[in-house]
Amino acid sequence: MSGSTFGKIFKVTTWGESHGKGIGVVVDGCPAGLSLSEEDIQPYLNRRKPGQSQFTTPRKEDDAVEILSGVFEGKTTGTPISMVVFNKTQRSKDYSEIASYYRPGHADYTFDQKYGFRDYRGGGRSSGRETIARVAAGAIAAKLLAELGIKVTAYTKSIGPVSLEEKNFDLSLRDHNSLFFPDMEAYEKASAFLKEKQGEMDSVGGVVECLATGMKTGLGEPVFDKLDARLGQAIFSIGAVKALEIGDGTKVSASFGSTDNDGFTNEGGKIVKTSNHAGGVLGGISDGSNLILRAYFKPTPSIFQTQKTVTQDGRPIEIQIKGRHDPIIVPRAVVVVEAMTALTLCDLLLCNMTATMDHVKKVYRDE
Amino acid sequence: MSGSTFGKIFKVTTWGESHGKGIGVVVDGCPAGLSLSEEDIQPYLNRRKPGQSQFTTPRKEDDAVEILSGVFEGKTTGTPISMVVFNKTQRSKDYSEIASYYRPGHADYTFDQKYGFRDYRGGGRSSGRETIARVAAGAIAAKLLAELGIKVTAYTKSIGPVSLEEKNFDLSLRDHNSLFFPDMEAYEKASAFLKEKQGEMDSVGGVVECLATGMKTGLGEPVFDKLDARLGQAIFSIGAVKALEIGDGTKVSASFGSTDNDGFTNEGGKIVKTSNHAGGVLGGISDGSNLILRAYFKPTPSIFQTQKTVTQDGRPIEIQIKGRHDPIIVPRAVVVVEAMTALTLCDLLLCNMTATMDHVKKVYRDE
Amino acid sequence: MSGSTFGKIFKVTTWGESHGKGIGVVVDGCPAGLSLSEEDIQPYLNRRKPGQSQFTTPRKEDDAVEILSGVFEGKTTGTPISMVVFNKTQRSKDYSEIASYYRPGHADYTFDQKYGFRDYRGGGRSSGRETIARVAAGAIAAKLLAELGIKVTAYTKSIGPVSLEEKNFDLSLRDHNSLFFPDMEAYEKASAFLKEKQGEMDSVGGVVECLATGMKTGLGEPVFDKLDARLGQAIFSIGAVKALEIGDGTKVSASFGSTDNDGFTNEGGKIVKTSNHAGGVLGGISDGSNLILRAYFKPTPSIFQTQKTVTQDGRPIEIQIKGRHDPIIVPRAVVVVEAMTALTLCDLLLCNMTATMDHVKKVYRDE
Amino acid sequence: MSGSTFGKIFKVTTWGESHGKGIGVVVDGCPAGLSLSEEDIQPYLNRRKPGQSQFTTPRKEDDAVEILSGVFEGKTTGTPISMVVFNKTQRSKDYSEIASYYRPGHADYTFDQKYGFRDYRGGGRSSGRETIARVAAGAIAAKLLAELGIKVTAYTKSIGPVSLEEKNFDLSLRDHNSLFFPDMEAYEKASAFLKEKQGEMDSVGGVVECLATGMKTGLGEPVFDKLDARLGQAIFSIGAVKALEIGDGTKVSASFGSTDNDGFTNEGGKIVKTSNHAGGVLGGISDGSNLILRAYFKPTPSIFQTQKTVTQDGRPIEIQIKGRHDPIIVPRAVVVVEAMTALTLCDLLLCNMTATMDHVKKVYRDE
Repeated sequence: MSGSTFGKIFKVTTWGESHGKGIGVVVDGCPAGLSLSEEDIQPYLNRRKPGQSQFTTPRKEDDAVEILSGVFEGKTTGTPISMVVFNKTQRSKDYSEIASYYRPGHADYTFDQKYGFRDYRGGGRSSGRETIARVAAGAIAAKLLAELGIKVTAYTKSIGPVSLEEKNFDLSLRDHNSLFFPDMEAYEKASAFLKEKQGEMDSVGGVVECLATGMKTGLGEPVFDKLDARLGQAIFSIGAVKALEIGDGTKVSASFGSTDNDGFTNEGGKIVKTSNHAGGVLGGISDGSNLILRAYFKPTPSIFQTQKTVTQDGRPIEIQIKGRHDPIIVPRAVVVVEAMTALTLCDLLLCNMTATMDHVKKVYRDE
Repeated sequence: MSGSTFGKIFKVTTWGESHGKGIGVVVDGCPAGLSLSEEDIQPYLNRRKPGQSQFTTPRKEDDAVEILSGVFEGKTTGTPISMVVFNKTQRSKDYSEIASYYRPGHADYTFDQKYGFRDYRGGGRSSGRETIARVAAGAIAAKLLAELGIKVTAYTKSIGPVSLEEKNFDLSLRDHNSLFFPDMEAYEKASAFLKEKQGEMDSVGGVVECLATGMKTGLGEPVFDKLDARLGQAIFSIGAVKALEIGDGTKVSASFGSTDNDGFTNEGGKIVKTSNHAGGVLGGISDGSNLILRAYFKPTPSIFQTQKTVTQDGRPIEIQIKGRHDPIIVPRAVVVVEAMTALTLCDLLLCNMTATMDHVKKVYRDE
Repeated sequence: MSGSTFGKIFKVTTWGESHGKGIGVVVDGCPAGLSLSEEDIQPYLNRRKPGQSQFTTPRKEDDAVEILSGVFEGKTTGTPISMVVFNKTQRSKDYSEIASYYRPGHADYTFDQKYGFRDYRGGGRSSGRETIARVAAGAIAAKLLAELGIKVTAYTKSIGPVSLEEKNFDLSLRDHNSLFFPDMEAYEKASAFLKEKQGEMDSVGGVVECLATGMKTGLGEPVFDKLDARLGQAIFSIGAVKALEIGDGTKVSASFGSTDNDGFTNEGGKIVKTSNHAGGVLGGISDGSNLILRAYFKPTPSIFQTQKTVTQDGRPIEIQIKGRHDPIIVPRAVVVVEAMTALTLCDLLLCNMTATMDHVKKVYRDE
Repeated sequence: MSGSTFGKIFKVTTWGESHGKGIGVVVDGCPAGLSLSEEDIQPYLNRRKPGQSQFTTPRKEDDAVEILSGVFEGKTTGTPISMVVFNKTQRSKDYSEIASYYRPGHADYTFDQKYGFRDYRGGGRSSGRETIARVAAGAIAAKLLAELGIKVTAYTKSIGPVSLEEKNFDLSLRDHNSLFFPDMEAYEKASAFLKEKQGEMDSVGGVVECLATGMKTGLGEPVFDKLDARLGQAIFSIGAVKALEIGDGTKVSASFGSTDNDGFTNEGGKIVKTSNHAGGVLGGISDGSNLILRAYFKPTPSIFQTQKTVTQDGRPIEIQIKGRHDPIIVPRAVVVVEAMTALTLCDLLLCNMTATMDHVKKVYRDE
């Protein structure tokens, strides 16, 4: 069944395979009148581009986005915005070997089980390249949110045992290192750790944290489209994510009501919370404080060590994966987490437009 | 905007408030020909019923379910199944105090912000009673899954610092203690811990684990309705959940590809995995091994200690919550996690029906 | 698959069978803050109630609606509004005969083919009683539209060969005759015609026209949720409708561009059309002029004449339908057409809230 | 709000404007394993191509379709199928005049009202070129239906006063005349009529009929996604359609139950209807007999006569439309009606897969 659409009002539909003609996305439901051009989107794609460091695959991928519809005279028209990144380097590489067996940790086996066969070239639809589409759409969502003062920022929180330290935290550093750490010390340590593991032909996991500031209250539609529920779908739809925390996350299970509850107070006439263990969500609805979430990524499944698996017809074999593969998913996933968070917030912001008769009358009364 | 519907084919729409006339659910899209009666559903509701132990509120709630439509001569007809649990004890209690301020950790503030006002009686729509509807629907999903050999089981994994121990794990024990632990030793320790915290007028958090056995391969629709993505939505839509893990969960971030990858082997002609770090999901699609997830619950926000908050008009006050409140959410949430998991699997099982032309021809060829 | 939900934002889910426990509906997505009580809804249900004339079945059905959720202190809360009409008279009548064969013109055969069996009591889910749910939901939609000045009115346009005449047209007469004609002369003629056909144990068809005044521009979402497309779904979802016209309808096929095009002019500073052949829809979007549509209903399939059909196992037989059956569907369908039109307009009015960044900023800027 | 998606399982999302970079469509939810290439789709596009006769615009548009994803080794993979037709001739024509006023009968005014501004080049999103996307998607649906023996065929039924005659009806003639009449005599007469009206600088309307043979029973999901309801949405979503009939259509309103009811009989062990006034739909579900519908199209709104309208700022003016415009929409709309009917049937065929536990077990039992 169709599963490539996200969102209820700001609807994003992605398409494309790793080694097909391109990767694309249709954004339907973007309000008319938002300034938009490729220049708004390309910087986001550049952040997920490979070949930026020794830890990402050095293959050259341009990933230049083209807007094909929905924008006229520099503004969105309210009609579907189609974007595409053509795959420039469709190498005629021989994939017949990879086609014949199931790589551990990859979707080869499950795609065959589900669909009867699979596009085995570079992972096909299950490739990380599919996230190009999400990032392009997320850039539009981020631009819309920015018009209302909401800013979404993701960064690397940890790689293997190396975590950023609160005392060093400086968001302005994020784009100054290839691991997207907002902490140069953590970046140095993580780099050393990655080099070591690369030497062992192994890969490692890590954590991406995402923060949204300037939040509005009221985002989230109880009871199944709550803000946290939709973030749950959004973040777990990213490949390799195995856990998600909102606010204090797993820690709450060992916490007490007396410490976990966020009190309320009055700050210059405005009701605000005195702490933010909840991470910005109460009863599934944004409470106006910062949204905070963490996504846990497994290690890259493609490693160069010998692994045991089976062929398509069930014959046990030993394989050794070749090619160029990042030893860590996290740095390139940072912008993907940011994009999926922005898409979720943008959609729920629009969903909340019809929450009250007051909103309805604001829009229609003087028309 | 509407947010009370879950599922794309097996569609569940819930309604009702804590102190309204009742709580109900419409299940639309259940295949015709499934044997069904209230007797299939009531045992699930009984598991979430309060008053079963010293740690759950002793108030008497019958929570007897009635099927109002969609079943004829003991079988589902393919038309919407409407179920209701009438609220028998709509006490004329005075809620005016609770109406005037925002309880910390509750949805009072966010509902007011979103909708302009709220049904303050017992939490209204944000009350835990809303889960009655999910559990009733989940019971139908579980019955359908059982017809195909899939069994979903949730249980308490930890309460505060007390976790079940692998060596004591025995699922048959789960229903023999009021905390739904599959480990009587853990139950005893957790009981003592809860008594202590109750004495301190405090509440505690905990973890629910859920296991699905007899899994089919192929469930999950890439890329946004992946099995883990839909579970992400389902589990985070439950109140008080602040983290979700699938398989090894947060641990993968400190793991290596060489240990995290699940190999494949051939067991009596059947391809199976040699381990299950993934928790049954590869590339967003079920791989046939057991599904494993863990939901982390925050402590009950209603505690009897004095707390700081504000009134609706922003005046800082100190409050003391009265009434009867469970010091722990987990035991009654066990069946809710089970229900939401069953609903997700059932919906995706039906979604997968149209994955291949082979499936389509199996159904239509001889008709 | 689930098919009992209509609308994208103002979502209506109906349930219930003719002889089950009741007929109900959940309205999810209604904005908070709309005044609402049973008194707003009951008058609509009374208009579709049987037993109002010699041409509608004299059986006594109270059809008293109860609101079970979503309304607090006289206003909608933004949460799902559940409504039910309990079936008071579940007669233990013997339906075994009707169960054994397929009534011509009814859904008996197709329900059996689709679902494997059917609730044969009084037509089950395919009974006209299902429209109770639509009418109850439509009453809420109509109330919301009225707050913005939009008024939806349906009436009988023709019964068999008897049509209302333009010169007699007076909407205030509609509720003063049991056929809901806005023309007493047409009512008299149609009554005589119906009596004659009843004597011949036959039934007749007719036409319902629906008019919406006070229209806003901008309703309808190109290209598949255009105003006329959604009306197409809404009206054809009513049983017995075999044709729908919007504006000039079938006549346009014999018309010319020079006469069919509606010109524009300026009326006191406001752009208006100089004619309304289009019936209020241009390019799938409301143009601010009156919406006009006509639904064509087939004759009641239950007639007392002998008819040829087959039993469930394919044996040819002759049958004679018993019981009480209206010889004409149209009068009771008037309010159903009105309800479905109101539901469509209300949903598209809310959908249009996010059409422009201007709308978005109007709602969020000062929050 | 998003409105460019049609279908619940076989989901079609279109994008593109008349004079943008191209027109495209993403088909998500097509089962894996269907043979597919551009050669299956191009013939459908060729049928809607302009420049095929003296009555269609002679401008040269290649409209060559490219499949960008979702097909591997000649078969659909179950992932989204993206298709595009690039606009080859983006003439730098001056559209500033057309931009300044509202053409009667076009969507200029309503797009401005809804979105605040519009892409005025050639009608933008409201152009007939948008149907390219529907036709491309419809070709896939038709191929899938054909695998199960269902064949959908549309043809011109009438142009102005000229209707095809039953005695001349021969489907094999349809593609042998530029008006797509299955009747050469009607073609000749209509040609003469069109030439006359072209001379008068006027345009005319007409009727497209569509027939589906080899139908399965069970298609259609009561109560809002009935077969006729979904056809209602599908057909009215085509620009210029002002009426839709199913089976006997408007005639039923003047008919009697005794003649309108289709009886049942047994033909060689198979239950069949003795007539087909219903046009293949009973209770919103396909009954196995032929599906028959008729769409009524208004005259082309672009005519060369002088017309009265207003400028964007409300100043009354007289305009004369220039350029090349078909004097009749019908011939090029034939394949569009066919495509939308095929899309509806294909989606409902897949929706019906989960109607019974028997279907579910057929698919899963031996897996």
